[in-house]
Amino acid sequence: MRKSTTVTAAVLVIGDEILSGRTKDRNLGYIAEYLAKIGVDVREARVVPDIEDEIIAATNALRERYDYVVTTGGIGPTHDDITADSIGRAFGVPVGEDPRAIAIMLERYAPSDLTPARRRMARIPEGADLIENPISRAPGFRIGNVFVLAGVPAVMQAMLDYAVKSMKTGAVMLVETIAAGSLPEGLYGEALGAIASAHPDVAIGSYPSFKDGRFSNQIVVRGKDEEAVAAARRAVETMVAELSKDESAR
Amino acid sequence: MRKSTTVTAAVLVIGDEILSGRTKDRNLGYIAEYLAKIGVDVREARVVPDIEDEIIAATNALRERYDYVVTTGGIGPTHDDITADSIGRAFGVPVGEDPRAIAIMLERYAPSDLTPARRRMARIPEGADLIENPISRAPGFRIGNVFVLAGVPAVMQAMLDYAVKSMKTGAVMLVETIAAGSLPEGLYGEALGAIASAHPDVAIGSYPSFKDGRFSNQIVVRGKDEEAVAAARRAVETMVAELSKDESAR
Repeated sequence: MRKSTTVTAAVLVIGDEILSGRTKDRNLGYIAEYLAKIGVDVREARVVPDIEDEIIAATNALRERYDYVVTTGGIGPTHDDITADSIGRAFGVPVGEDPRAIAIMLERYAPSDLTPARRRMARIPEGADLIENPISRAPGFRIGNVFVLAGVPAVMQAMLDYAVKSMKTGAVMLVETIAAGSLPEGLYGEALGAIASAHPDVAIGSYPSFKDGRFSNQIVVRGKDEEAVAAARRAVETMVAELSKDESAR
Repeated sequence: MRKSTTVTAAVLVIGDEILSGRTKDRNLGYIAEYLAKIGVDVREARVVPDIEDEIIAATNALRERYDYVVTTGGIGPTHDDITADSIGRAFGVPVGEDPRAIAIMLERYAPSDLTPARRRMARIPEGADLIENPISRAPGFRIGNVFVLAGVPAVMQAMLDYAVKSMKTGAVMLVETIAAGSLPEGLYGEALGAIASAHPDVAIGSYPSFKDGRFSNQIVVRGKDEEAVAAARRAVETMVAELSKDESAR
């Protein structure tokens, strides 16, 4: 059955370490690609520091605007892990030690090893559902349309597998990539713009990369209608073939 | 001479390809690290699609709030390159073909090769200063406190070298990293929180990584006052040494 709905999401990356450049974020790209494949379109991303007011403001701005928000980072056992409390405040609900989370953590830790720091990871906003963490057990959570995941990529990825089970999904974005090789963007830009105008149901992008002193280009056609995407792809392929012939004859 | 001022910046990444996951952004991490080293603190980042209203809204939100905004992407020769026009609209100024940009491009292209698509890259908002592009010549620009750079990392990096020459800079953030190794965060979280409270002039973060089924942790102390950073570092080192001794005695 073909789905025609669009489901949107935003990603909120939380952590000083990303904004200082110490840690290079790998979560946004992973989440964007993962959600695209299941029919959830990531429309915006933000990175904020470990400051409660910043997390609250970004969470509220994004959750009002998109179907889902996925956050990463700040749910560990140390003092700088303030995401759960911030999200609780964003929703205006109390945050306390969740017996379900404690029970899960006791599967990993002996009671005497459940330090105050570790108990911090059981702080969950009231009304939230837990998100399983098969790697280190301390759970993430979902409250309203916000999914709160860990920052460590391996843990985030495992949580995301679980989180998406409760997301509604829309039509999957179809993507066709046409290699333009060393044909310069400056030679096809005008013709490609005309193709984009003639195919309003798809989005067409042109992406150069630069390696060993040379540019090479890829043209990407994206859309949710199979025929529209195929038609635009054919038009782009024809254009690239014709201009490449002209270019090699120069 | 010691600088005591703080200079802040935001990064605005522009492009559908980042939000679809097709392209994994490498620019934010590079810019964050680069600016940190020269005394400009990146406080926020956003990623928006190639939609004029989104670019305008994000640019205006960020430029009012931070000393500088650095944008990446959307200044090439194709129809989806709409950054210059969007920034012009954000500032409420006309955007036209800039004779300075045309002159620079004519150093690379013969006049007959200056296609309409390439001329698009000479569209610069009125009142902007150009930013040199030693790689492919078509310039970036600065208008007000907003620096508009290319999206291709090699080109962006070369433009950034030029762009920072006109930025004021503040005190450089001093960063000390203390390896906690396999000492679990859950065992040092409480003591680290106490150290953080006792050293309010620094920010202390704890960063786990996960590899081959094991976590290992690093503790990072950041601040602008050399003595405050050194004192916090010593406190963290002492804590790690003591807890490691306890842990190995267990």
